[in-house]
Amino acid sequence: MSLKATFERNRQRYEEELTDFLKIPSVSARSEHKQDLARCAEWLAGKLTEVGMAAEVIATPGHPIVYGELLEAGEDAPTVLVYGHYDVQPVEPLDEWESPPFEPTVRDGRIYARGSADDKGQIYLHVKALEAYREAVGTPPINLKFIFEGEEEVGSDNLENFVRNNKERLASDACVVSDTPMLAADLPSVVIGLRGLVYIEVRLRGPRQDLHSGAYGGAVTNPANALAGMIAALKDDKGRITLPGFYDDVIEPSDEEKKALAEIPTTEKELLEQTGAPALGDGEEGVHFLNRIWTRPTLDVNGLLSGYTGEGAKTIIPATAMAKISLRLVPNQDPEAVTQALEEQLRSLLPVGLEMEIERHSWGLPWYSDPAGPLFRAASTAVKEVFGRGPLFIREGGSIPIVPMIERELGVPVLLLGFVLPGSNLHSPNEWLSIEMYHKGIATVTRLYDAIAREYRA
Amino acid sequence: MSLKATFERNRQRYEEELTDFLKIPSVSARSEHKQDLARCAEWLAGKLTEVGMAAEVIATPGHPIVYGELLEAGEDAPTVLVYGHYDVQPVEPLDEWESPPFEPTVRDGRIYARGSADDKGQIYLHVKALEAYREAVGTPPINLKFIFEGEEEVGSDNLENFVRNNKERLASDACVVSDTPMLAADLPSVVIGLRGLVYIEVRLRGPRQDLHSGAYGGAVTNPANALAGMIAALKDDKGRITLPGFYDDVIEPSDEEKKALAEIPTTEKELLEQTGAPALGDGEEGVHFLNRIWTRPTLDVNGLLSGYTGEGAKTIIPATAMAKISLRLVPNQDPEAVTQALEEQLRSLLPVGLEMEIERHSWGLPWYSDPAGPLFRAASTAVKEVFGRGPLFIREGGSIPIVPMIERELGVPVLLLGFVLPGSNLHSPNEWLSIEMYHKGIATVTRLYDAIAREYRA
Repeated sequence: MSLKATFERNRQRYEEELTDFLKIPSVSARSEHKQDLARCAEWLAGKLTEVGMAAEVIATPGHPIVYGELLEAGEDAPTVLVYGHYDVQPVEPLDEWESPPFEPTVRDGRIYARGSADDKGQIYLHVKALEAYREAVGTPPINLKFIFEGEEEVGSDNLENFVRNNKERLASDACVVSDTPMLAADLPSVVIGLRGLVYIEVRLRGPRQDLHSGAYGGAVTNPANALAGMIAALKDDKGRITLPGFYDDVIEPSDEEKKALAEIPTTEKELLEQTGAPALGDGEEGVHFLNRIWTRPTLDVNGLLSGYTGEGAKTIIPATAMAKISLRLVPNQDPEAVTQALEEQLRSLLPVGLEMEIERHSWGLPWYSDPAGPLFRAASTAVKEVFGRGPLFIREGGSIPIVPMIERELGVPVLLLGFVLPGSNLHSPNEWLSIEMYHKGIATVTRLYDAIAREYRA
Repeated sequence: MSLKATFERNRQRYEEELTDFLKIPSVSARSEHKQDLARCAEWLAGKLTEVGMAAEVIATPGHPIVYGELLEAGEDAPTVLVYGHYDVQPVEPLDEWESPPFEPTVRDGRIYARGSADDKGQIYLHVKALEAYREAVGTPPINLKFIFEGEEEVGSDNLENFVRNNKERLASDACVVSDTPMLAADLPSVVIGLRGLVYIEVRLRGPRQDLHSGAYGGAVTNPANALAGMIAALKDDKGRITLPGFYDDVIEPSDEEKKALAEIPTTEKELLEQTGAPALGDGEEGVHFLNRIWTRPTLDVNGLLSGYTGEGAKTIIPATAMAKISLRLVPNQDPEAVTQALEEQLRSLLPVGLEMEIERHSWGLPWYSDPAGPLFRAASTAVKEVFGRGPLFIREGGSIPIVPMIERELGVPVLLLGFVLPGSNLHSPNEWLSIEMYHKGIATVTRLYDAIAREYRA
């Protein structure tokens, strides 16, 4: 049977199985979902076994790793490591979801559910690609190792240790990751640059408890005012981050990449439609908006909480104030050095009358890859066969800390070939995956097996 | 029977009745407590009837007013209006209460409950003083009008209308209010200055919903960062508020008051013990901490909310950010002018890419009274009889917007004679009232009847 016929016959089942996968609320940041993560890992390992892999669930001090191998192509054939994550972001604010986040719902050719795009849909297309290839063609011409973690959204700490301690087992010639977007349904994209990440939580404590703002206002330091001042001082009036030496290691994109960027058809209007923002505007003065996302670092407050937030007025000086603050970094900024500079700056900004506690949440290196060599050629071939055109080489503003880590620890090139359309609400309410792109992803990956085999044998 | 014997015989019942009063959760800011406010007003009116007053519950567009009269002293006798409020502040954060806020609990000679000090305990001592006087002595030598509102903590809008429309009914020679602190158990105090209040809520909206901070960070304005910047810009680096002309109308205290202030025994250490703050520190450079509370204006953030505030990390650009911001004003600042200047300043600080909504919550004039004339002399006499010494004349950093309003609308002097000890956690968890001061308050008010009658006849 041809691949095409296989895809058509199984199309509905591929979607139903993904739906089952999406129903499991694998929110890694929330301790109450620990059992759901375990259940999700077992489910996924079962599916790897069904498609012929030797699969196992590997316990870690956090959420488990799912690992599967199919090494039937022989020692001379190239080996490809496929990485992804089965954990998902928290779902709040829940009331903004049009359908519940863990009850996958199809509307307008999209599957709406938390994790549909990031990253369950994109790892499951690899599972179904392997199944389809075996069903239609037979044993793939490459060896495959699948590694799917449950802690990508909380910093991948345990995966890093696992990779470091299992280099031989994970040894491969290339790594493929589907956890990135494409620019449009007719513009398949390979991501060649990612931003790094630093994420901290700052907690200020002043008085023992909330105080009457009349009885004490003026004499006691207000943690909420202080926190606002400290956050504001982290940027200057041009939108540049004020940490000492922060921009010293930032590498400008090459002239070639700048030229390519200028030809990318994404418009400001599209970004406004995707986000619903009244206007673009934040960020560094004089920098193109795509460069502000792709090649420049940022500092964003991700959450703020202090004092009385209910209905009406309460005249208090809050006892505490909390901010979650993250920075996106670009090559070659060092997350550890940035974290230290940030902590130092916050300490120097802390007014008298307050105590401060800083918790480090997560951490990731920025990454860039020159799109040359057999892996990128193979990707271009496979993409062209399915989409009728080769991929754009773009960057992504997000962070996949595991990518630079795999590249460094295993010494392999990493291909970021994703199938998520812009505006898919990753990390937001109403996350969705295009059903058409899901199936095109499955098809592309089957072609990639052949293309990689050809390129690496050539 | 002597007053003393009457107090002793009824002591326990005075406490039990207050406990019943405190059990009613009359939180005016929360719409779900509307029925509790109505119930509380009925209960209180019943108690006024029991002590011989003609009492009624008067409906308003908000929470009702409780009004009672006892006009048996004759037309030549002075008439005293007693004002107070039976509504209370919200109770959050609930988990910081050692006993539930509406289950009054006695520990170490204190009644712990929301409203014990502010202001239920302090209005109920007036009710019991009248009862005791009638029981022990007979008809008081002054006419009494009690007006207790249910909206003091949310701005007193409907009381203002009521006072304006009922000037004849409320006509009196003096007004007495017990809603203020004393400096210590052996330092009875009369408050001669209050700060005014402006309270607004600022809501910023950027993207339609929370966005992935990697996919959009840098291009889309972050409402949380913006709000922090806007709040920070409301003060300069000397702690002075930056609204144009803000300090123009501030009146310096007189030399006499400054001298009195220097003799007030409150220490920085006491304030730190009361508040649990690690150090004093906020506020204007070079201003004594008591003056920063009593005679200088302030700007405090009362609440902050934006984005993800749960456990762990979520890498988002929040869709919205909210701040509750209030200013305490001093004579002769104008709350309306300050509100307008604040709104204008916030509009001018708003970055591109955001929409802003400002809601006005409450509003109150600052107030000052020269402690001269028969009312203050009578207070000194009554206080001396019960406490063995005359009162200190102090200011209070809080706001009782109704005080300047009553003074202006009814043309009467207002005496702020309160019995709440410092550190009573007004507006905070674990609010308490000293049981000894409650009973001393009852005794003082009975003496005040005679002292006022003497002073006004003289």
